[in-house]
Amino acid sequence: MRASAFGKGARRCALAAALAIATAGAAQAAPPDRAAIQAQVAQRHDSAVKALQDWIALPSIAAEDRNAKQGADYMARLARDAGFQHVEVVDTGGKPGVFATLDAGAPVTLGVYFMYDVKQFDPAEWSSPPLEGRLVDKPGLGKAIVGRGATNQKGPETAFLTALQAIRDAKQPMPVNLVLVAEGEEEIGSPNIARLVLRPDIQAALKKSIGVFMPMGLQAPDGSVTVNLGAKGVVELELVADGKAWGRGPASDVHSSLKAMVDSPAWRLVKALDTLVSDDGNTVAIDGFPKPAPLTAEQRAMIARSSAARDEATAKKTLGVSHWIDDLPWDKANERLVSQPTINIEGLVGGYTGAGGKTILPHRAVAKIDMRLVPPMTRDGVVAALKAHLAKRGYGDIAVNVSGGYDPTSTDANSRLVQAQLDVLRRAGVEPLLWPRLAGSYPGFVFTQSPLSLPSAHFGLGHGGGAHAPDEFYLIESTNPKVQGFDGAVMSYVDYLYELGRQDASSAAR
Amino acid sequence: MRASAFGKGARRCALAAALAIATAGAAQAAPPDRAAIQAQVAQRHDSAVKALQDWIALPSIAAEDRNAKQGADYMARLARDAGFQHVEVVDTGGKPGVFATLDAGAPVTLGVYFMYDVKQFDPAEWSSPPLEGRLVDKPGLGKAIVGRGATNQKGPETAFLTALQAIRDAKQPMPVNLVLVAEGEEEIGSPNIARLVLRPDIQAALKKSIGVFMPMGLQAPDGSVTVNLGAKGVVELELVADGKAWGRGPASDVHSSLKAMVDSPAWRLVKALDTLVSDDGNTVAIDGFPKPAPLTAEQRAMIARSSAARDEATAKKTLGVSHWIDDLPWDKANERLVSQPTINIEGLVGGYTGAGGKTILPHRAVAKIDMRLVPPMTRDGVVAALKAHLAKRGYGDIAVNVSGGYDPTSTDANSRLVQAQLDVLRRAGVEPLLWPRLAGSYPGFVFTQSPLSLPSAHFGLGHGGGAHAPDEFYLIESTNPKVQGFDGAVMSYVDYLYELGRQDASSAAR
Repeated sequence: MRASAFGKGARRCALAAALAIATAGAAQAAPPDRAAIQAQVAQRHDSAVKALQDWIALPSIAAEDRNAKQGADYMARLARDAGFQHVEVVDTGGKPGVFATLDAGAPVTLGVYFMYDVKQFDPAEWSSPPLEGRLVDKPGLGKAIVGRGATNQKGPETAFLTALQAIRDAKQPMPVNLVLVAEGEEEIGSPNIARLVLRPDIQAALKKSIGVFMPMGLQAPDGSVTVNLGAKGVVELELVADGKAWGRGPASDVHSSLKAMVDSPAWRLVKALDTLVSDDGNTVAIDGFPKPAPLTAEQRAMIARSSAARDEATAKKTLGVSHWIDDLPWDKANERLVSQPTINIEGLVGGYTGAGGKTILPHRAVAKIDMRLVPPMTRDGVVAALKAHLAKRGYGDIAVNVSGGYDPTSTDANSRLVQAQLDVLRRAGVEPLLWPRLAGSYPGFVFTQSPLSLPSAHFGLGHGGGAHAPDEFYLIESTNPKVQGFDGAVMSYVDYLYELGRQDASSAAR
Repeated sequence: MRASAFGKGARRCALAAALAIATAGAAQAAPPDRAAIQAQVAQRHDSAVKALQDWIALPSIAAEDRNAKQGADYMARLARDAGFQHVEVVDTGGKPGVFATLDAGAPVTLGVYFMYDVKQFDPAEWSSPPLEGRLVDKPGLGKAIVGRGATNQKGPETAFLTALQAIRDAKQPMPVNLVLVAEGEEEIGSPNIARLVLRPDIQAALKKSIGVFMPMGLQAPDGSVTVNLGAKGVVELELVADGKAWGRGPASDVHSSLKAMVDSPAWRLVKALDTLVSDDGNTVAIDGFPKPAPLTAEQRAMIARSSAARDEATAKKTLGVSHWIDDLPWDKANERLVSQPTINIEGLVGGYTGAGGKTILPHRAVAKIDMRLVPPMTRDGVVAALKAHLAKRGYGDIAVNVSGGYDPTSTDANSRLVQAQLDVLRRAGVEPLLWPRLAGSYPGFVFTQSPLSLPSAHFGLGHGGGAHAPDEFYLIESTNPKVQGFDGAVMSYVDYLYELGRQDASSAAR
């Protein structure tokens, strides 16, 4: 985890001081000719939307071994088209990555993290074809592109690339140099991200940057924006109970009547799973599992502010949830969301999974698990604890097959990367909410931890929804003036780049 | 359960006495012209095999709502072709049944139970197409038809129908009247069998019979035959944990990061399942579950004889099992098989079940369960105990969706239906093993319980394997003289019918 630039005693005052500095510098940060760039954005609108649709039509899905090379090549072409001078597809041992640099001769260099892969999808669950990127009316929001990857992450990424093209076409100076790393395995837990980012020349290029950001549509339907100061880590794994590994039960499925004389790997899985969580299923009960670091007063204050600003009833309705864990009130539920690790059953697969029943005693049963980690947990530490727990409880035969994951990420609110966001948002009339830690995960650890030790964050106006779900969308034309459509999202990147490129600010804080 | 024809004190001696009677009567039971019938069987061989293949090509699968009407109509046609004079497709409220009678003017009437449905199958798991019924060389056995339903139950049923045709074509007297009931829901637990069998006119027709038998290839690969004196009952059901029913957790799948503030129906299912069995997964731990009746000395003796005659190593190899439950020795494992009820996980289905992972918190998780019941358990009693257990443990929201099932079946070894089997087997040079109770299930309860209170059993020479599994087969041409192929199986039914038709025997015991 990245160490704070401030001493321990000073930390509590740092945020307030930083906010004051940022507000003072805000007036000087406009780009040379913002109107000219905005005109280019408007002119490019249709072709940019078309470019997003074309990209959606090429889904790269690592879990299904689908379109990895095609996706990386396509990503490389997008980078070239956006003005990156050096563009390279990188062998990572897994799905290829892309490394690209744009040298603007600027004093400031910015790292950019992209993913070109998307989550799996089942077209039967969608109301419009998931690879078509159809423009659909979303009541209360406006016109949105519906398609797999629309918001996670091709929409925001396309908006960012469009910003680069608009600056170039408006013949304005590119305010920062860019170092882009794009991976094709984000959705499987980025198992090879270090082999991309830490390749010596790529690491050296990123080391020159003030931090690494990922484009994201951060606006809620009411226009509010939450700036995340980190993210939970994650481990994705399968727990597999198998007759062969166990040395008991059948080696292949047998007739269920034999249960009276043959042991059952499926029951064994249930019994082992049972030991991993508290009776209510909500607290990790793995022996030796690290205690989560308690929230600081500053973090609790952020959560309280954000909880007050966000509508609990809307959140419950959106999620289809009538009670939070332990019937907690909204702010305490949010504290739990930020501060607690999780162990979640993503999927259960054993024996006969079709319609009706089938009288077999399965030889194998699998629980698909994801765990979310907070400091001081590490991916490797948690996997080791899980394995030790199973062994100690007599379930050492149950395989722990880790498919991906990484440590938590933390970025200081006082970093230039974050402060520039606050400036841009306020100029856009949005008073941002700070959030200590995203409950989801992204592989920011590879940037925030040694050897790079850089700030890392998401940024962008605009709105999307349905990540990982059916009918994923990204808003193109907004009917709510407080929420930006595609062109507004593009301009938020333009403004962010110019804000980061300001000489005075960039020398003041990194 | 059917009451024994003998008093309690007499029961211990009954079997030995019955065996003595049967042996004494054996010489008199040959049909009028067995050779003529056998010649017809040989002449019919190719067309009978073709008929079996044609039947296999029409799979009726209740769980998939596939070919129910077609299967019933086809079954009716097969009955007509075999000489049944009255044939009727019967509406049961579920998949249709078939009722047929053959009046031979004989003093003895025999009930026959058929199923025309088959188990689900996945062609990808088969080495030859499951609906083709291809003739395949089975090393060590001979030529076998491989196809879904080959042995369970179309092969033995075709052999029985062929026996009727051969007797007719040989112009020999039909020795018994027949009452046939055929159902299309055996593989989903016969939910409507009573609506077929107990329709007043069908019940009245069956009531005249000495008992009801089902054709089955009873021979093991070494030629030995086990005669079952009953079968376990069964309940098939799904346990469903669902956010809506629970009033906690999500109403549809949400992002897995929300596990930190949202309850999980999948964990709830695991916790509820955990309470249903002992730590080793082998003993039912449902509160108030009836204690199984202990084995009698006679039953233990049957199991000991059978265990000594059957090779444990072969059984282990066939099942892919290296240890029985609790590392029991062979005879004790067999005692457990016969005497103990089971609760088995057939399948686990929750959340994401595809390749790799998908970071969702599922709103629903399902365990597909089957339970096997021994006296004094009843299907309804066990379901009630399960529901009460879940409610008492605080899991009353977990749905118990029963799809089928029935009580255990018991038939007295001294019944004419069983004694005639022993006679025929001994004449064929096979010393049958008696087995107290099949660990599998069939809906014999509808015949053995009130109001019919009839004996019910399986019978037939011949051999098959792979019921419910890929590459199901039924032996057509045997290379082992101790194991009957198709024609031998047909002749075993011829001999059984004539044995049952013997006037002296039929009046002596019912």
